[in-house]
Amino acid sequence: MLILGIDPGTAIMGYGLIEKKGQTLRAVDYSCWRTPADLPMPYRLKILFENLENFLLKYSPDAIAVEELFFNRNTTTAISVGQARGIVLLSAARNNIEVFEYTPLQVKQAVVGYGKADKHQIQYMVRALLSLTENPKPDDTADALAIAICHAHSQRL
Amino acid sequence: MLILGIDPGTAIMGYGLIEKKGQTLRAVDYSCWRTPADLPMPYRLKILFENLENFLLKYSPDAIAVEELFFNRNTTTAISVGQARGIVLLSAARNNIEVFEYTPLQVKQAVVGYGKADKHQIQYMVRALLSLTENPKPDDTADALAIAICHAHSQRL
Repeated sequence: MLILGIDPGTAIMGYGLIEKKGQTLRAVDYSCWRTPADLPMPYRLKILFENLENFLLKYSPDAIAVEELFFNRNTTTAISVGQARGIVLLSAARNNIEVFEYTPLQVKQAVVGYGKADKHQIQYMVRALLSLTENPKPDDTADALAIAICHAHSQRL
Repeated sequence: MLILGIDPGTAIMGYGLIEKKGQTLRAVDYSCWRTPADLPMPYRLKILFENLENFLLKYSPDAIAVEELFFNRNTTTAISVGQARGIVLLSAARNNIEVFEYTPLQVKQAVVGYGKADKHQIQYMVRALLSLTENPKPDDTADALAIAICHAHSQRL
């Protein structure tokens, strides 16, 4: 099965598509979409939406996994991430792909086996679990792959 | 010119379309879209998106006005509203309609002439300014009309 992990953001949206065959995980396609900072928000969201729609059309993933968001930072960030997240959920629904949500704690435990793992540990384990030749970058891409792995592990149970 | 005001939300999204001719404002179409509470969020966003796309296709408004959001409540609400707002901005960009944002203070000052106006005063003035026979309901619809009026007044200056 094909699992697409997404780390939503309006400036940069990380994505990681992995394939699960039995107990084996393989990275299929992973990177991020960026939008110009000087572009009005509606057009940034349009770029993300079109990239995502094209990606879903190309690969037809079986599931999309995103982080369940908890913010204790400012709410302006929450609204901005919410907007990007809305685009992801919309695109999933339009393509009839089920969305699964995991907390940051669940993702860390699934990938590193330790809920307080830092970004470096996550990158290291993502690389190891997917047998990548180098650390996935930027952080948004590594996080997207981590969420996809988290879903793959949840399915196993 | 046709101005569409939107009060974004995932459970209920208020909309109010007004026409401005010279100094005269007229309500063209106003109500709200509701989504079933038991439906997964992606499908609720899809319903809102489709309603909005159909509405924009039908009326081709010249501008869309939404509130600039400031939350001091919990961030979970901010993410939820952000998701609905993302759908509105996306749909605007897809239809090449410019989006204008106003703070709650600007909306109240434009509609009631008083930044601390309550919901009741806003409804009363929206009704008076648009010569409606009764108060627009629910609040989401009244707020959407108020935002559209705010944009109409800003354009006048």
